[in-house]
Amino acid sequence: MVTIDINCDMGESFGNWTMGQDEKVMPYITSANIAGGYHAGDPHVMNEIVALAAEHDVGIGVHPGLPDKMGFGRRTMAASPDEVRDYVTYQLGALQAFAERHGTTVQHVKPHGAMYSMLSESDEHAQAVMEGILDVNEDLIYLATDMNIYEVAQEYDELRSVFEGYVDLTYRPNRSLIVEQQMEPKESNLIAERFLDIALDGKVTAEDGTEIDVPAKSICIHGDGPNAVELLETIHQQVDEHDIELASLDEIV
Amino acid sequence: MVTIDINCDMGESFGNWTMGQDEKVMPYITSANIAGGYHAGDPHVMNEIVALAAEHDVGIGVHPGLPDKMGFGRRTMAASPDEVRDYVTYQLGALQAFAERHGTTVQHVKPHGAMYSMLSESDEHAQAVMEGILDVNEDLIYLATDMNIYEVAQEYDELRSVFEGYVDLTYRPNRSLIVEQQMEPKESNLIAERFLDIALDGKVTAEDGTEIDVPAKSICIHGDGPNAVELLETIHQQVDEHDIELASLDEIV
Amino acid sequence: MVTIDINCDMGESFGNWTMGQDEKVMPYITSANIAGGYHAGDPHVMNEIVALAAEHDVGIGVHPGLPDKMGFGRRTMAASPDEVRDYVTYQLGALQAFAERHGTTVQHVKPHGAMYSMLSESDEHAQAVMEGILDVNEDLIYLATDMNIYEVAQEYDELRSVFEGYVDLTYRPNRSLIVEQQMEPKESNLIAERFLDIALDGKVTAEDGTEIDVPAKSICIHGDGPNAVELLETIHQQVDEHDIELASLDEIV
Amino acid sequence: MVTIDINCDMGESFGNWTMGQDEKVMPYITSANIAGGYHAGDPHVMNEIVALAAEHDVGIGVHPGLPDKMGFGRRTMAASPDEVRDYVTYQLGALQAFAERHGTTVQHVKPHGAMYSMLSESDEHAQAVMEGILDVNEDLIYLATDMNIYEVAQEYDELRSVFEGYVDLTYRPNRSLIVEQQMEPKESNLIAERFLDIALDGKVTAEDGTEIDVPAKSICIHGDGPNAVELLETIHQQVDEHDIELASLDEIV
Repeated sequence: MVTIDINCDMGESFGNWTMGQDEKVMPYITSANIAGGYHAGDPHVMNEIVALAAEHDVGIGVHPGLPDKMGFGRRTMAASPDEVRDYVTYQLGALQAFAERHGTTVQHVKPHGAMYSMLSESDEHAQAVMEGILDVNEDLIYLATDMNIYEVAQEYDELRSVFEGYVDLTYRPNRSLIVEQQMEPKESNLIAERFLDIALDGKVTAEDGTEIDVPAKSICIHGDGPNAVELLETIHQQVDEHDIELASLDEIV
Repeated sequence: MVTIDINCDMGESFGNWTMGQDEKVMPYITSANIAGGYHAGDPHVMNEIVALAAEHDVGIGVHPGLPDKMGFGRRTMAASPDEVRDYVTYQLGALQAFAERHGTTVQHVKPHGAMYSMLSESDEHAQAVMEGILDVNEDLIYLATDMNIYEVAQEYDELRSVFEGYVDLTYRPNRSLIVEQQMEPKESNLIAERFLDIALDGKVTAEDGTEIDVPAKSICIHGDGPNAVELLETIHQQVDEHDIELASLDEIV
Repeated sequence: MVTIDINCDMGESFGNWTMGQDEKVMPYITSANIAGGYHAGDPHVMNEIVALAAEHDVGIGVHPGLPDKMGFGRRTMAASPDEVRDYVTYQLGALQAFAERHGTTVQHVKPHGAMYSMLSESDEHAQAVMEGILDVNEDLIYLATDMNIYEVAQEYDELRSVFEGYVDLTYRPNRSLIVEQQMEPKESNLIAERFLDIALDGKVTAEDGTEIDVPAKSICIHGDGPNAVELLETIHQQVDEHDIELASLDEIV
Repeated sequence: MVTIDINCDMGESFGNWTMGQDEKVMPYITSANIAGGYHAGDPHVMNEIVALAAEHDVGIGVHPGLPDKMGFGRRTMAASPDEVRDYVTYQLGALQAFAERHGTTVQHVKPHGAMYSMLSESDEHAQAVMEGILDVNEDLIYLATDMNIYEVAQEYDELRSVFEGYVDLTYRPNRSLIVEQQMEPKESNLIAERFLDIALDGKVTAEDGTEIDVPAKSICIHGDGPNAVELLETIHQQVDEHDIELASLDEIV
């Protein structure tokens, strides 16, 4: 029996502006990465999404971003390691309060966009953030999108970490992802195949046809993809037909 | 032996802008009301002030404000009870994370400026916020600036609340405060007298010479007053010379 | 021959968040009210929309809001007349620069949401804003949504003003509008009838069947209504079939 | 007779937070670089400072920053040339409106902090901003802090530009400036000497004692330096005692 998590970025609406389709996607996932009000989200949105996640027994994580709503947290900025650590601490704490309100807890941390890139490129930034996380709560899990950061996380004995893979984006042979400016609809057969390959074998076929290692215990789905719900249904079919169990990060590590 | 708390608003600097004289005032107080990043403060400021408060064994409270930095949270806005509750939850949680980081906990909540007024004028708003606080942490204390809100707080059996008095502002006979546009320096004798009157007798002399009830267990000092440190020293002298003990809110209720 | 303007709120996207369907609506209107970056919009959005309006020869107006993106400028706040005047001045100037960049000029001002309500309810605020507008540019037109504010505007000899009517909302007998929480699709026959009634006769049928005066020289359409484009097409048909000409505010006053 | 300008960054207060000593410094300078509400400043502050500058016949320039108040615009961010151009356009326009309000015009543009660095390091960004400025107003002057950007500016025939020098910071032999974390008080004799050297000879003594070219027509003074007013008085004495005239940028180019 293989156990795997499905995570999705959530709570990226802001005020009157809507993004994604959180209500439709939530029933299909096991972990939600919830924006913390810096690159997206606000207290009202956070409250709604935490309630929704709790209702569906979905694991809650903070998806902290840089303080740049205008750029949706996608522009790196010359913030110091301590500044980034404090941004994460702030957003993590805010989410914890909403989790407490809804009788649940925050299980994981997954930095967003340019903050993710900054941590991946600077060990000093990554370490500041990871130590900051541990200072707040030693039970938190770091959800790692690339190997650099996964390795930094593993240097901390107390910090649990999980590596994630993608099925709705294509990998290059070097395990980097081909990011699409505008998400195209994906063929569900292809996604089903990738999901099984990663879940059962920890491998996936890259852009050039070679098979690469993706030792992921969590699969990230883009909830704002044009046919995200269809893809999630396909994945659930595969889960039902194979010896696979879906579980939140907390139950996996 | 009388026990009383001294509280002060703190952490109202923002980025490169400085406000108040937190480092000078902290040694003299027992509870710090720390801005939560909405009307003032930011993650870096919060981290610094929580560390400073922890170092001086000062009780930590959140001083949540409306999302209006340009107006310093002093302009009421037509936000709903749920919106205000979510703003408080968010800022409370953020402060909790910094408290955890520095090995301490958040002991109290004292809304700032226009948010304070909104709660005082609308029971519906006050109730939403108080229920929101209890949802997050039943150990929190509500620090109440006027009787309206103190009475609302006391309707919740689980919610501890403390009424605060002022010594560097003058009361009207109806127990409202005469707010100064620009804080003037205060005579230390007058402040000493008011402090003793409130601490020992729960009374103070109002603007018109009448004596009014101020049953306060905490005294609020404006840390940005021009001679705040001098006034705090005077109060500490009185404490030393009388049977009074200073203690944080947590030790009082 | 009757001449009338069609205006629509535009440029209310922000960063990665999209609102409305500006590109689809622009070909059908003669005046665009463009958000100024306070309640919605940002410099990039403003640049795009001004370019689009210029391309379609649509008159450009600023649609200034309160500094409250989280509340989309829909919550009144206790800002002083001078503060509101300065917010309008700031956003007006910003839009003027983009207009200059695209070889056009700003023709009008139409305050958004809660700012509109504040001006409508306080002559002091309305006067501060109108005098502020005149200080910047005496050629600007004030687009007035209700009679209160229209009358204040007319007290200024130098200030041109236009009263606007609505066809996709229903009037009460007292000429106030029944605002919908969520815009429902509208029947195009009804909208065509209302358009002709206002354009040709300055009258419209209210909720209770009575006929009321709406002496409007401009019709406001909600561009984010579910069938806004269909309604605009219907209106254009009526224009073609009757002795009506569409023209921007500038050509009307 | 030599003519030279003295410029100073101004209007960097925000809401209730004060920075600098604009009222004290304004009488001594000929050009004011006014923050545009992004890294610092707000509509109310802008209105006040433009009024003050107009009263003292000081030339008005926009001092646009990145949208990062928390970092005071001092952190480079991965914004595109078009984004930075739009930020400048927006802030420039906003200032123009306040200038119109006070019967004056904007004479120059001097980017702030990290935006200045980004333009200096990327010709593509610098060109986007300069073309953006020209699109708005061909009479504007670009105030250049280093030779890179001065040379880019000079490629535009229509764009007037002025190179500025510093007297309250020390130059390295390569004409870069030694920036101080915390401005120290400066000796007025040294400042007087540097001022005369730059004003009369276009030269200054660098850190290592070598004499370097600083062909500046404007001298920048840090208004928040601890003895800024004293230094400005010293400079004015030198002006009186030598064949030097102070004039705003507009009168110099």
